[in-house]
Amino acid sequence: MSTVDKYFELVDQHQQKFIETLREVVAIPSVSSDASRRGEVVRMGEWLQARWEALGATCKRVDPGKQDLHGVELDLPPVILGQYGNDANKKTVLVYGHYDVQPALLEDGWDTDPFTLVEMADGRLVGRGSTDDKGPVLGWLLCAETHKQAGLDFPVNLKFCFEGMEESGSEGLDDIIVAEADKWFKGTDVVCISDNYWLGTSKPCLTHGLRGVSYFHLQIEGPGADLHSGVFGGTVHEPMIDLVHLLSTLVDPNGRIKVPGIYDQVMAETEEEQRSYEGLEFSHNALAGDLKRDIIIHSDERMTLKHRWRYPTLSIHGVEGAFYAPGDKTVIPARVRGKFSLRTVPNMEPARVAELVTQYLNAEFAKLGSKNVMKVIETHGGRWWYSSPNHPNFVAAARATERVYGVAPDLTREGGSIPVTLTFEENLGVNVLLLPMGAADDGAHSTNEKIDKRNYIQGIKLLGAYLHEIAVTDLTATTA
Amino acid sequence: MSTVDKYFELVDQHQQKFIETLREVVAIPSVSSDASRRGEVVRMGEWLQARWEALGATCKRVDPGKQDLHGVELDLPPVILGQYGNDANKKTVLVYGHYDVQPALLEDGWDTDPFTLVEMADGRLVGRGSTDDKGPVLGWLLCAETHKQAGLDFPVNLKFCFEGMEESGSEGLDDIIVAEADKWFKGTDVVCISDNYWLGTSKPCLTHGLRGVSYFHLQIEGPGADLHSGVFGGTVHEPMIDLVHLLSTLVDPNGRIKVPGIYDQVMAETEEEQRSYEGLEFSHNALAGDLKRDIIIHSDERMTLKHRWRYPTLSIHGVEGAFYAPGDKTVIPARVRGKFSLRTVPNMEPARVAELVTQYLNAEFAKLGSKNVMKVIETHGGRWWYSSPNHPNFVAAARATERVYGVAPDLTREGGSIPVTLTFEENLGVNVLLLPMGAADDGAHSTNEKIDKRNYIQGIKLLGAYLHEIAVTDLTATTA
Repeated sequence: MSTVDKYFELVDQHQQKFIETLREVVAIPSVSSDASRRGEVVRMGEWLQARWEALGATCKRVDPGKQDLHGVELDLPPVILGQYGNDANKKTVLVYGHYDVQPALLEDGWDTDPFTLVEMADGRLVGRGSTDDKGPVLGWLLCAETHKQAGLDFPVNLKFCFEGMEESGSEGLDDIIVAEADKWFKGTDVVCISDNYWLGTSKPCLTHGLRGVSYFHLQIEGPGADLHSGVFGGTVHEPMIDLVHLLSTLVDPNGRIKVPGIYDQVMAETEEEQRSYEGLEFSHNALAGDLKRDIIIHSDERMTLKHRWRYPTLSIHGVEGAFYAPGDKTVIPARVRGKFSLRTVPNMEPARVAELVTQYLNAEFAKLGSKNVMKVIETHGGRWWYSSPNHPNFVAAARATERVYGVAPDLTREGGSIPVTLTFEENLGVNVLLLPMGAADDGAHSTNEKIDKRNYIQGIKLLGAYLHEIAVTDLTATTA
Repeated sequence: MSTVDKYFELVDQHQQKFIETLREVVAIPSVSSDASRRGEVVRMGEWLQARWEALGATCKRVDPGKQDLHGVELDLPPVILGQYGNDANKKTVLVYGHYDVQPALLEDGWDTDPFTLVEMADGRLVGRGSTDDKGPVLGWLLCAETHKQAGLDFPVNLKFCFEGMEESGSEGLDDIIVAEADKWFKGTDVVCISDNYWLGTSKPCLTHGLRGVSYFHLQIEGPGADLHSGVFGGTVHEPMIDLVHLLSTLVDPNGRIKVPGIYDQVMAETEEEQRSYEGLEFSHNALAGDLKRDIIIHSDERMTLKHRWRYPTLSIHGVEGAFYAPGDKTVIPARVRGKFSLRTVPNMEPARVAELVTQYLNAEFAKLGSKNVMKVIETHGGRWWYSSPNHPNFVAAARATERVYGVAPDLTREGGSIPVTLTFEENLGVNVLLLPMGAADDGAHSTNEKIDKRNYIQGIKLLGAYLHEIAVTDLTATTA
């Protein structure tokens, strides 16, 4: 029996113990956005550090400094850096995860206490953090413990980086990655992050792309103070009227961006990419069910995925400065800011996006003939991430997936952003892989968050199998 | 010397005493929107009632019931109804005013304590309520007192209706007017309201029109819950995108309403109306100064006044349900409500306005091809008020004005609404006149509210002269 098969057998034998371990960590309410729970976040980090140290890992606790949370000054929870094994003949894999969770209250609509893991008859393991991201973080630990206890050779040197602020903007993390790139993280061959989800509910996937986001405030300034619409309506240029006209020029009701030049920067589709959409586990029926109303623009599933993954999109989020409360108010707001953002894709450059958007809005505003003052402010310009799924890191993960699940994984991208992915890639100069453990319906930030027992147990196998595959993969092979 | 001339002489003699009386009532902080000041509002009403009763008036205190003010149940302040004189040979004039005031705090930017009347070297009498509406309310009282003390015959029977909730929506007032129309208010020949302002700062005016207001919520419902723009942007019909497209179809940046049929109901301009714009005290320079930025649409002052007074206008107030806070949030709001209102003019009917707006938005929404659900909700449809300035009530007021100020008054309309005007007209079936005492720059709802000493003293003369003119006017004469 191979080491991997022996490992699989042990995981199957220990599955109840592994569920108990998950129960133990779900019971620590490490909610990073709640000042009163900050001590629990720290406790969760210390639990992880102690358990890894007990196994023989070397850990370093890095404190990112202070945080101002709604006027309360708090210590940020530590980033736990670790090194498990230091064999010059083995490859070094850096894994990232987070040990903090989203808020959860029984009153929010949970069927059971969110911080008590409940194993349902249908196989769901329900509890806050079960899938996001305590299950996957435990996966790496339980894999190492299982190898050690059974005397199995651990196939790689493992470095890890576990943070406690992911659900609250990863405050302080980027600086630590930059500072440690040539120190703690030196020698890293590849990075693996297990903090996202399958495209559907039955088929595993590897994720090789994320979109960037460019966020804009479109500000219109009119009079010195809010005006009474009875006195001034129809006699002055109203900032809100200018604003709705400009916002309506940005995108049509079918999601087509009207800013000239935006689509020029989009990477062309290759035949290989075309083929990659075949057989993906994704259906409009399921999507419409999740949305509660079928408001899907495209008639074809592939087009929906392409507009999520590989085309830029533009969303309008709201208006600051106007009347927003329930009821009626006859104010003419003096200064308003429309908020919108573009999700960006290869090969768009944030600076160029900002330039195109600003030029276009200046030209459209000039057409209005308004005497108000318009300003376009780019408040954020984060880049997309794209990795070839042919990189040996992905090939290894695909082989591991086939070994555990018996199917080739879907190759997916995601429409959102996981900024740390790009931070690792840019600062360590190595390939990064997103290897999800949970399924699309896990409800990561919702009530009744769960991970299916299958995903948890097979996921623990998957992470181990991946490390074994990396050990026998030539990471220097050029991508096909 | 005529009675009127004698009255004018007495007012000039007593002006310092009249300023002291204003000081006395400004010192009562009768802020109707502040629960902790409710007792002061009641005290102010009782002050008025006692003073009129001392003069021999019959008063009736009507309690409009209870109010829920931010969760605190409060007694509404009384409406003070009064009758001063009951001579079958005299005409009966009903006057309305309010004894409550807007909130005011020194920290808001007042130069002096808002509840201490300060007489400035430039003639301003600064204090909360000085012009809105305590000065005018005192005007009627001081006029009656002056006549009585000097043994001058009071020219009419005076009825009055003074409320303490005008700055907080006149809660309960309409029901009282309806109930008392054939009782306390029976026999009223004309109504006079002194609770608005001159068009400018030097020339008196009579006001004979107000606009109505129809308020709409334009609701777009999409998914069952807010969505993440990274995942769903560009793949679903976004309610905010539909909304900005629809709002932009309502009105152009120059204030032209694009709803077909809206202008069809607007009363045609007569030559007499055309002439009435000549010589009005109104300038774009002054207006631009007040606005702090010249955002005036029209190049001609008359067009600005016409769009304030006699044309409908449409303003966009804000959006409920979308992201409105400072900062960035990448949400796709699930359900949004755009708020807009039309100011309506003769001869527009609110029901027809709602019909036209709804039909148009239904047609425009259909063009978008969106799968979201749209609904137009009319939350308020208040009618305009328009009175001929040739009515004997206005002719009497014009003669009184010439007698006091030596000039014919401007004939003005206002862009806003004073709903009680229409309530009196419709329920009492008599002519209503708006006869302002204060000037355009009094800052009724602002810091450093003032009434100029000239306006206060001449205003007391004006109200008296008006009553004397009414006494000798044939109110049954047909309007020219």
